[in-house]
Amino acid sequence: MKQNLTLIKVGGKIVEQPASLASLLDDFAHIDGQKVLVHGGGRSATAMATRLGVETVMIEGRRVTTPEMLEIVTMVYGGLVNKNIVAGLQARGINALGLTGADMNVLTGHKRDVKTVDYGMVGDVDRADGSRLASLIETDVVPVMAPLIHDAKGNMLNTNADTIAGETAKALSPFFNVTLVFCFEKPGVLSDENDDNSVIPLMTPDMFRQLTESGVVCGGMIPKLTNAFEALRSGVGEVIITSADSLSDLSKGTHVRL
Amino acid sequence: MKQNLTLIKVGGKIVEQPASLASLLDDFAHIDGQKVLVHGGGRSATAMATRLGVETVMIEGRRVTTPEMLEIVTMVYGGLVNKNIVAGLQARGINALGLTGADMNVLTGHKRDVKTVDYGMVGDVDRADGSRLASLIETDVVPVMAPLIHDAKGNMLNTNADTIAGETAKALSPFFNVTLVFCFEKPGVLSDENDDNSVIPLMTPDMFRQLTESGVVCGGMIPKLTNAFEALRSGVGEVIITSADSLSDLSKGTHVRL
Repeated sequence: MKQNLTLIKVGGKIVEQPASLASLLDDFAHIDGQKVLVHGGGRSATAMATRLGVETVMIEGRRVTTPEMLEIVTMVYGGLVNKNIVAGLQARGINALGLTGADMNVLTGHKRDVKTVDYGMVGDVDRADGSRLASLIETDVVPVMAPLIHDAKGNMLNTNADTIAGETAKALSPFFNVTLVFCFEKPGVLSDENDDNSVIPLMTPDMFRQLTESGVVCGGMIPKLTNAFEALRSGVGEVIITSADSLSDLSKGTHVRL
Repeated sequence: MKQNLTLIKVGGKIVEQPASLASLLDDFAHIDGQKVLVHGGGRSATAMATRLGVETVMIEGRRVTTPEMLEIVTMVYGGLVNKNIVAGLQARGINALGLTGADMNVLTGHKRDVKTVDYGMVGDVDRADGSRLASLIETDVVPVMAPLIHDAKGNMLNTNADTIAGETAKALSPFFNVTLVFCFEKPGVLSDENDDNSVIPLMTPDMFRQLTESGVVCGGMIPKLTNAFEALRSGVGEVIITSADSLSDLSKGTHVRL
């Protein structure tokens, strides 16, 4: 029987402030079974870019990654944010290992083709090596993954942390019973965006269709749920959309199932 | 019989310029047997500090590491320099894995005690986990180590790359027949510091004593050789002091033996 594995994706905000980071790491350390943490770091990258006099350009929520910006995200995601998390988890007795996609070749991809927008050194994932990761996880190593991949030609590429989480969850599914948890600002998918108590506890493909048509589910939640269903169809056991401060009780939030 | 392992330590200068880095990675990729790369990055850290308006203070060649400087070295060593090397090695078919001492808890230490000088967040190594590293290396993973450790209390610490190399070489010696290679600007220990053709091919403890007394060996070479003999007494098979552009022929340089 496959072991349970929980893969948690947290955004930049939560890991960039000492108090919320400490609380997150406490909760993460208490999750039973095997686990993986995928983190963002966009706010820190933007702040560092400002300090360095490099302009941040976002198009449809994605960072345009010039060579100068690639240096910054490589430093900030792969160095500063990642190593602070790793050191914080080690202090909690978790044997964390910080990784980008280049490390042990776990996530390889290519520079996104220029269609209407040139995002620069932004990468789309071609291949995730679940086998290498699984072997490490089976020795109680906890991967902590930064949102960076490589192109196998010597270049790092900036990649959305949600994508890293989804691709890694799928690649680990042959080896573990994977629960993929997306943490964001809200406690789940809400039926009333102004009421945090209106979490929809279960989301199925039929409900998603109906709620999208009626406009209840809209905006950034549509690609998030589309990705969730895609992950489920690729072998992930369950997807949970919740807030970072609910990690101690994963029965909360929106549970996405086929 | 133990496999051969070559642990190469390279300074910042060589890994911070694209042309010399490419040449180094080509040579490193061609080294037979198991291998590990330990890198510096001091020049990049100083350049980044200058761009960020943070003053660099060096005392006896060591960087005073304020909390602000710790952020910079964590970003630059653990992120920028490390991941560029890892991506460059992956492009050459080497399954590199970037590590700080916090990752998988491989190098733990404590903040250096304040005696006459407060170096700030500078760490002295207490423990190196050779067993974890050896298991990975046996699956053809090539560790690429940044000069950072952690204190097991959640803090990263800045540590001299020569120290990282020496401690890692010693920790791997129960598992491999380790050759420790220190690359620096000169082709080896010179009998005439103005003549690069005056490399002393073999250095023994007796010769070291004589050459130190006569003043032929002086300055920064004394701690380097002292560390080399200490590594040999702790199980390292051989120490070679050479230049980075001689990595394709390790018969050159100064071979330090007991």
